[in-house]
Amino acid sequence: MTLKFDFQRPERTGLPEAVFCHGKDIKILNSILDTLGKKKTPVLLTRLNQEKYQSLESGIRKSLAYDPASETAYFNKGPVLKMNQEKIHRSPETYPVAIITGGTSDSKVALEAQRTLAFMDIESCIIMDVGVAGLWRLQESLSEIQRARVAIVCAGMEASLPTVLAGLIKAPIIAVPISQGYGVAEGGKAALMSILASCAPGLLAVNIDNGFGAACAAIRILNCE
Amino acid sequence: MTLKFDFQRPERTGLPEAVFCHGKDIKILNSILDTLGKKKTPVLLTRLNQEKYQSLESGIRKSLAYDPASETAYFNKGPVLKMNQEKIHRSPETYPVAIITGGTSDSKVALEAQRTLAFMDIESCIIMDVGVAGLWRLQESLSEIQRARVAIVCAGMEASLPTVLAGLIKAPIIAVPISQGYGVAEGGKAALMSILASCAPGLLAVNIDNGFGAACAAIRILNCE
Amino acid sequence: MTLKFDFQRPERTGLPEAVFCHGKDIKILNSILDTLGKKKTPVLLTRLNQEKYQSLESGIRKSLAYDPASETAYFNKGPVLKMNQEKIHRSPETYPVAIITGGTSDSKVALEAQRTLAFMDIESCIIMDVGVAGLWRLQESLSEIQRARVAIVCAGMEASLPTVLAGLIKAPIIAVPISQGYGVAEGGKAALMSILASCAPGLLAVNIDNGFGAACAAIRILNCE
Amino acid sequence: MTLKFDFQRPERTGLPEAVFCHGKDIKILNSILDTLGKKKTPVLLTRLNQEKYQSLESGIRKSLAYDPASETAYFNKGPVLKMNQEKIHRSPETYPVAIITGGTSDSKVALEAQRTLAFMDIESCIIMDVGVAGLWRLQESLSEIQRARVAIVCAGMEASLPTVLAGLIKAPIIAVPISQGYGVAEGGKAALMSILASCAPGLLAVNIDNGFGAACAAIRILNCE
Amino acid sequence: MTLKFDFQRPERTGLPEAVFCHGKDIKILNSILDTLGKKKTPVLLTRLNQEKYQSLESGIRKSLAYDPASETAYFNKGPVLKMNQEKIHRSPETYPVAIITGGTSDSKVALEAQRTLAFMDIESCIIMDVGVAGLWRLQESLSEIQRARVAIVCAGMEASLPTVLAGLIKAPIIAVPISQGYGVAEGGKAALMSILASCAPGLLAVNIDNGFGAACAAIRILNCE
Amino acid sequence: MTLKFDFQRPERTGLPEAVFCHGKDIKILNSILDTLGKKKTPVLLTRLNQEKYQSLESGIRKSLAYDPASETAYFNKGPVLKMNQEKIHRSPETYPVAIITGGTSDSKVALEAQRTLAFMDIESCIIMDVGVAGLWRLQESLSEIQRARVAIVCAGMEASLPTVLAGLIKAPIIAVPISQGYGVAEGGKAALMSILASCAPGLLAVNIDNGFGAACAAIRILNCE
Amino acid sequence: MTLKFDFQRPERTGLPEAVFCHGKDIKILNSILDTLGKKKTPVLLTRLNQEKYQSLESGIRKSLAYDPASETAYFNKGPVLKMNQEKIHRSPETYPVAIITGGTSDSKVALEAQRTLAFMDIESCIIMDVGVAGLWRLQESLSEIQRARVAIVCAGMEASLPTVLAGLIKAPIIAVPISQGYGVAEGGKAALMSILASCAPGLLAVNIDNGFGAACAAIRILNCE
Amino acid sequence: MTLKFDFQRPERTGLPEAVFCHGKDIKILNSILDTLGKKKTPVLLTRLNQEKYQSLESGIRKSLAYDPASETAYFNKGPVLKMNQEKIHRSPETYPVAIITGGTSDSKVALEAQRTLAFMDIESCIIMDVGVAGLWRLQESLSEIQRARVAIVCAGMEASLPTVLAGLIKAPIIAVPISQGYGVAEGGKAALMSILASCAPGLLAVNIDNGFGAACAAIRILNCE
Repeated sequence: MTLKFDFQRPERTGLPEAVFCHGKDIKILNSILDTLGKKKTPVLLTRLNQEKYQSLESGIRKSLAYDPASETAYFNKGPVLKMNQEKIHRSPETYPVAIITGGTSDSKVALEAQRTLAFMDIESCIIMDVGVAGLWRLQESLSEIQRARVAIVCAGMEASLPTVLAGLIKAPIIAVPISQGYGVAEGGKAALMSILASCAPGLLAVNIDNGFGAACAAIRILNCE
Repeated sequence: MTLKFDFQRPERTGLPEAVFCHGKDIKILNSILDTLGKKKTPVLLTRLNQEKYQSLESGIRKSLAYDPASETAYFNKGPVLKMNQEKIHRSPETYPVAIITGGTSDSKVALEAQRTLAFMDIESCIIMDVGVAGLWRLQESLSEIQRARVAIVCAGMEASLPTVLAGLIKAPIIAVPISQGYGVAEGGKAALMSILASCAPGLLAVNIDNGFGAACAAIRILNCE
Repeated sequence: MTLKFDFQRPERTGLPEAVFCHGKDIKILNSILDTLGKKKTPVLLTRLNQEKYQSLESGIRKSLAYDPASETAYFNKGPVLKMNQEKIHRSPETYPVAIITGGTSDSKVALEAQRTLAFMDIESCIIMDVGVAGLWRLQESLSEIQRARVAIVCAGMEASLPTVLAGLIKAPIIAVPISQGYGVAEGGKAALMSILASCAPGLLAVNIDNGFGAACAAIRILNCE
Repeated sequence: MTLKFDFQRPERTGLPEAVFCHGKDIKILNSILDTLGKKKTPVLLTRLNQEKYQSLESGIRKSLAYDPASETAYFNKGPVLKMNQEKIHRSPETYPVAIITGGTSDSKVALEAQRTLAFMDIESCIIMDVGVAGLWRLQESLSEIQRARVAIVCAGMEASLPTVLAGLIKAPIIAVPISQGYGVAEGGKAALMSILASCAPGLLAVNIDNGFGAACAAIRILNCE
Repeated sequence: MTLKFDFQRPERTGLPEAVFCHGKDIKILNSILDTLGKKKTPVLLTRLNQEKYQSLESGIRKSLAYDPASETAYFNKGPVLKMNQEKIHRSPETYPVAIITGGTSDSKVALEAQRTLAFMDIESCIIMDVGVAGLWRLQESLSEIQRARVAIVCAGMEASLPTVLAGLIKAPIIAVPISQGYGVAEGGKAALMSILASCAPGLLAVNIDNGFGAACAAIRILNCE
Repeated sequence: MTLKFDFQRPERTGLPEAVFCHGKDIKILNSILDTLGKKKTPVLLTRLNQEKYQSLESGIRKSLAYDPASETAYFNKGPVLKMNQEKIHRSPETYPVAIITGGTSDSKVALEAQRTLAFMDIESCIIMDVGVAGLWRLQESLSEIQRARVAIVCAGMEASLPTVLAGLIKAPIIAVPISQGYGVAEGGKAALMSILASCAPGLLAVNIDNGFGAACAAIRILNCE
Repeated sequence: MTLKFDFQRPERTGLPEAVFCHGKDIKILNSILDTLGKKKTPVLLTRLNQEKYQSLESGIRKSLAYDPASETAYFNKGPVLKMNQEKIHRSPETYPVAIITGGTSDSKVALEAQRTLAFMDIESCIIMDVGVAGLWRLQESLSEIQRARVAIVCAGMEASLPTVLAGLIKAPIIAVPISQGYGVAEGGKAALMSILASCAPGLLAVNIDNGFGAACAAIRILNCE
Repeated sequence: MTLKFDFQRPERTGLPEAVFCHGKDIKILNSILDTLGKKKTPVLLTRLNQEKYQSLESGIRKSLAYDPASETAYFNKGPVLKMNQEKIHRSPETYPVAIITGGTSDSKVALEAQRTLAFMDIESCIIMDVGVAGLWRLQESLSEIQRARVAIVCAGMEASLPTVLAGLIKAPIIAVPISQGYGVAEGGKAALMSILASCAPGLLAVNIDNGFGAACAAIRILNCE
């Protein structure tokens, strides 16, 4: 049972080396990180909740730059990371990527996207809580969104926000359905269907709650010039 | 096999006596209309497509006021009908019911709603093709919509229109999911889920393509003062 | 990450300012309530279960009028609240809104609807456990229901109650599917489909367990005169 | 490719020998009927629509007692059949089986059930169009239904009728969901879920549109004394 | 909020007065049982798991004849109960109802059915673990099953057992899909679909895991002579 | 738009070169066959219905050995084909593959499997109409089935046949769900779920109606010694 | 019933003005094109099948540049179109967009994407039939694909192609699920789920068969520099 | 309530006697193992998680050879077991069965398959983490996989691995969908559909996470020579 890592992926695809931690047991996770630690490969850990983080081997845990709000950690990332972290908290200016959310419940996914971008030294801003049930909130942030080269839109419930935005901006829009909600909204299927069925041309969807995937797609787009 | 009509329904519920024609074979339909004709009960026929209409007994067919665009017919309706028909083609003024659609493909359902209201002598206006992918189209008609006491909104695809409207008007909103579209939008399930999952409080849903039901609900609301 | 509140919504839509607490973490919830507290805006909190309520900051927790049975809380509501609370426990008289349930398991949703109405100073009565498997129970309460201007009907399992009621009353009927039950009834999808597919004209549906939404729709209807 | 018939089934199970014609091509159908014709086994053909009936070999076609309304045919049934046919058209008396339908669109399935029972020389009455949206129609027929030993209830749309009946009679109730309707009712899944999720204890379901199966279950029940 | 009991149901339908405990909170449950206790009505409690049972008021808890394996309890049942309890553990003889299961995991549902029958003083035998993947096990018990007037068959996974049995016995077969299993079998939908789609004529289905409903249907059948 | 054929597939995988004709338009189909004709590659055409077959270019049509019952055709197959064709119609002996069906409606899929095997010069027998609702029919053919090295079982409706067989034979069982039936059986999903959920260990499933795929899997198994 | 066009959309979003013809009746379509004709707006018509095209008013029909293979038409497009048309048939060089398909059945959607791009004067190449069941076919075209700035991948059935490609190229990948196939593949849901669930980071999905939407997203990406 | 064991199954089907422990309560499990212990039948226990294992009667627990990683245990297996256990940890050579996984999260199912094979004294190797998003990892192990007589492929998410493998090897491929993942991948349905819809001919599917069933099918195949 030898693990086979894919150390050349960053070169080929321009994407971060990442370990998806959900569903992996602690023993396997420790052994993966041990191997990666020796290779000094910078690695992004996603879906690492606090409980799992706490149960990692203490040596490994200490070497991680862990962020509980996004459930991500940086491993072997080096000094670049710190500088970038500061940038992402700056006041609203022009960013290559704007991350927009319809409600405050979508923050974890938005932060996962932001941390993934930051891992690749790409700055982004988060514009939160601009759901279309109150259009003026969107209007206030519109010019900021229009300056971005890529928009990532996190939207749960009926997910109207990406559709409305698609009529207002020129940039590519990566819509992330969010699993928030209850009844027919539960699990994010309604939001996903809404995004895919949208009458607004040119919307792009990723899997439900997949902030990491949305950021990777944004990286591909920014790399494509 | 005696048919049992419900002649007192209009009194009890304030709703039109109606015959849903889809799925009923011509022989049964002829016999129902024959019975109703003798009773002189005013009846609304819904989902009567042209082919079925043409194959009705010629005597019955001639006594129907048939409208192919909405696939409805009036039976035993009397002189009131004509006057009302004129009213519904008037220029935009204040109407008790505003019927709004997101696209031109939703017109049949919108017309079914309008004809149902007209059958009960309730005027309405139709505001077509104001989908949210182009918000300024909605903005132009907004003050007209705000004057109505009830809004019926027909919306297919991702059905964002009712959500956006719900943040802009005070009136009750009856949203009708439309079965237009392909892929995940096919059959109208995406639109239905979107309406039910909406983050905008106070949206009300009826079955997919149910223009008749939306109008009946509007009648109940107008009767509730 | 600035939060954007929608302080004008009550004026535009006539609906309560509300915070949906499910899925929001405590830190965000505390910060939202802190902001709202400073603005003195009256706010309704929904889906605030006891565990979450207990973990709020004690200062905020004390300023809430919390009701565990409906999992709602009033914030900044003022003296009007008390008076209204009394009213909703009065004996059966004529109320603008009648809230009807098919079984005792639907009480939480019914109470959420009632508390939402009360927040807007609208009185209502709850008529519980009148499922159609025993029609005489419905018959006893019928005249009381018929006096109301709007009926909210909570119905789980096969949700026949709204259909039966729709043949007996003139008022608009807002049906709330309930997620009670097991097997095919689990999660409330069977109830929802039953309501939407109903042969009774003029039924209106909201999302599963959405007592708050049903009340908001009732408020829109009562405002539409 | 030898066909293997199950000639002993009637003895073992007390049920009719039947051939389900839908989905079988004409060549195979002709060959099956040819074999059965030689054995003189009485056979019931179900789901034999007019087009398929017309394209059968003329010799075989002539030997069938075909009923287009129920899409069934009797083969080798003998003189008993005629007598029974008369009985099923008698005025309302006491019958071992009452077949009840919620609307006129359910008649084909109801007739399939009746013809299956008649094939086994069991009388039944059909009580049509007693949907619960108009309860008094049900009330009129209630005493007749209560006299039957088994009730077969055909119900489409939201299928409330079996639930309401289950609170009013003692007999076993076999509910047949009907595929009538549109939107969420399309295909009969809403009706099926409604029947299975019913809060009324002791309801029994068969597959959507399965009038034949409902009749077979009734035969098993009548045989079980 | 007055509770409305249906004390006449046993007379009208011949079925037990029952309280479905799942999803009802303890306070409501205590109040229901308190009311029923005063009326001396014999009541069957279903889906009362041990945890809920333990948290009932001690006075009420002591007056219940609780059976943890079936999660049922008898209330106000009187001396008849004891005698009956003995009978249901007798060796295999002729019983009015045979309860058959495909595996040992189905026992809770089978016992719920048996306890419901026993509450109405109807004897039954349970024949466990005769899944069709080993046909000889079924064969051994076949003559015993054939002597019963009604068969209740609990079957999870792919639920072939009812289909096979339907070809071997004359009695009515009430099939109960079981929610056991994983993957596509999870939740019992595969078993339910299998039963409804069965090629064996005359199978009857109840909701997933609904042992109580199956027993009620059996009671209706036994009452129908 | 150059087409890219995979001429080495037979060598690498041991499977027939095949063209799936459903959904391909005639122009593309003609061009594919023209290219293949020049290369003299033996090709199996599947899902080529009569209408499509008739509209092929006459030169191509004449060079096909078409079988309407299985909707397959052989192209460039050479003299081996004839000999093999005879073999597959021989009386029941020992065959490497036994193809078993639950009903006569499954014959097209069974024949597609047989023709695919014959294309690779593998003999097989078809044992038709041995559904488990009549177990003795299965019993008669059991010893013949037990002699085969692989069993392909076509089963629609509730698909119990593969489960029952799995308890009676040692050979690998490839189960093909069939799309026959109505209601919950429509489209074959019930049969598929039943096969996957089966309590009988070692059942293998292919896609609904995929006779070709089942035969390819059998070829892989026979090649694996 | 005034139609409201959105003539500023091209300026705001950089996307083509388009009319989705499926589901619109001929009368409405003629009237839309008449209006647009007068405004001289260049318009792309999608999902205009041959039958609908033939039934357009002859004046309008003649002014359309119709392409039956992609079911698209150009209206008011001007001389630019011709030049571009030539370019898209050139031999494989470097194109801004590479359109890749897994099979020949996906060609209509691929062509819809190409025609949409060409309408905006963007060149593209189509690389057809490189499904992953034969990896070397993909390998041959890989360097050509790697030169493109955006990849549109049309994939039906199990849709593995986008996942495999995502590990081999740096460019953004827009995956279009195709509705080809039968059984579980029918309608394209399996392909859609496969794309969304992909383990390859950075895949982007549009609705099933939505070649137009994929091209619009590519236009947004190319505009985002 | 006598339990009926199927002690002849190993002889008839060549498969291990197994007890599926999930969903069986401890009391029943203890009683089953007690009975089997007396008969000295070798038995494989599957889905026995650590918690359940710990709560078994200590006498029974001690007699089990329990493996927590695969959640399986051997009972009455005898000395053969040890020898075999060693073999399965040998370095990569030629094995009758190769078990391949797409990711490290699939290891439990892979180990369940391996332990089931080992119970029948069949050796196998596990080749882990060769997902197709990095094709070269697959390439490295390809010759080892090609030497096996049967391949079991565990694949979650979009499950492309079996499709890619099917184009590269001749052996039968048993694909096991894995329930890993979130959003549309949750529960393994996307993986299952992907496997069934695969364009690669000859793929075989078992239920989601069914490592035991995959191994049983491999045993049938190896027995079929």
